[in-house]
Amino acid sequence: MTRLLGIDPGLRSTGYGCLDVDRGRDPVLVDAGVLRLQATADLSPRLEQLHRDLESLLEDLRPDRLAVEGLFSHPRRARTAILMAHARGVILQLGEARGLPVDELPPALVKKAIAGHGNATKAQVQEAVRRQLGLSVAPSPHDISDALAVALCAARRLDTPSP
Amino acid sequence: MTRLLGIDPGLRSTGYGCLDVDRGRDPVLVDAGVLRLQATADLSPRLEQLHRDLESLLEDLRPDRLAVEGLFSHPRRARTAILMAHARGVILQLGEARGLPVDELPPALVKKAIAGHGNATKAQVQEAVRRQLGLSVAPSPHDISDALAVALCAARRLDTPSP
Repeated sequence: MTRLLGIDPGLRSTGYGCLDVDRGRDPVLVDAGVLRLQATADLSPRLEQLHRDLESLLEDLRPDRLAVEGLFSHPRRARTAILMAHARGVILQLGEARGLPVDELPPALVKKAIAGHGNATKAQVQEAVRRQLGLSVAPSPHDISDALAVALCAARRLDTPSP
Repeated sequence: MTRLLGIDPGLRSTGYGCLDVDRGRDPVLVDAGVLRLQATADLSPRLEQLHRDLESLLEDLRPDRLAVEGLFSHPRRARTAILMAHARGVILQLGEARGLPVDELPPALVKKAIAGHGNATKAQVQEAVRRQLGLSVAPSPHDISDALAVALCAARRLDTPSP
């Protein structure tokens, strides 16, 4: 059994979704939620809050692996991507410091794996996550469904040994 | 007396320059150097190495403040900026965790303050840093002179009380 923590990094809120994955069985939802950061604060205190909150989440959930949404670098969204990368930096460093393997999965790959195509909307991803985890209500907000989508995508890759 | 540590973040090498600043006196160079990261490694181990190396640098130098090069988001250099932002995230979080105030100074502002104009070349910044610190040889590589320029710029702002 492998416990996977999927993370959707952000400076306002960072979504997470935790799954237990067993070869040949459907992944089981363990926990999901959002780490909210003080939107008014400067970058540094927000990053420290994220570090602290994620550290205690890792302490509680004790995952075996992390899966984090990969880089995107669309020029029109450069500023957003640059800000988000600060949060990613903190998450990747913390994962490494705790000896956790980290899968970095590009957004388009996650969408294709979960919702069938790389341009799927957030609502389509949300519905696909609901269906694949056998939930009666779709996980919301999108930070959570996106984090669960990353975790589900990483789960499939565990199940499929590399060629 | 205030001890300032200027940092030029990067994923291959992060430059640093440490100054002691006393009101009305010229800043004194305490130490300067480069934290080199394994260029071949994945992002996560590099960020963890940066975290570890910077932590021991802070332990040795015990600065009162950090000064870090600010964000840039030129679309043509988006990918570089996004990668660099991961390192910045780790640096800002670590500064905050140690209770250090962090000045974030945009590159153009640093160049203008140190070399007279916002588009100064790296060689011009290097020469200006050499002159202002009374060094016989210009600090090299550019990671070091850039970090010292950030520290010098932050030092001036300490000397000039905000209006």
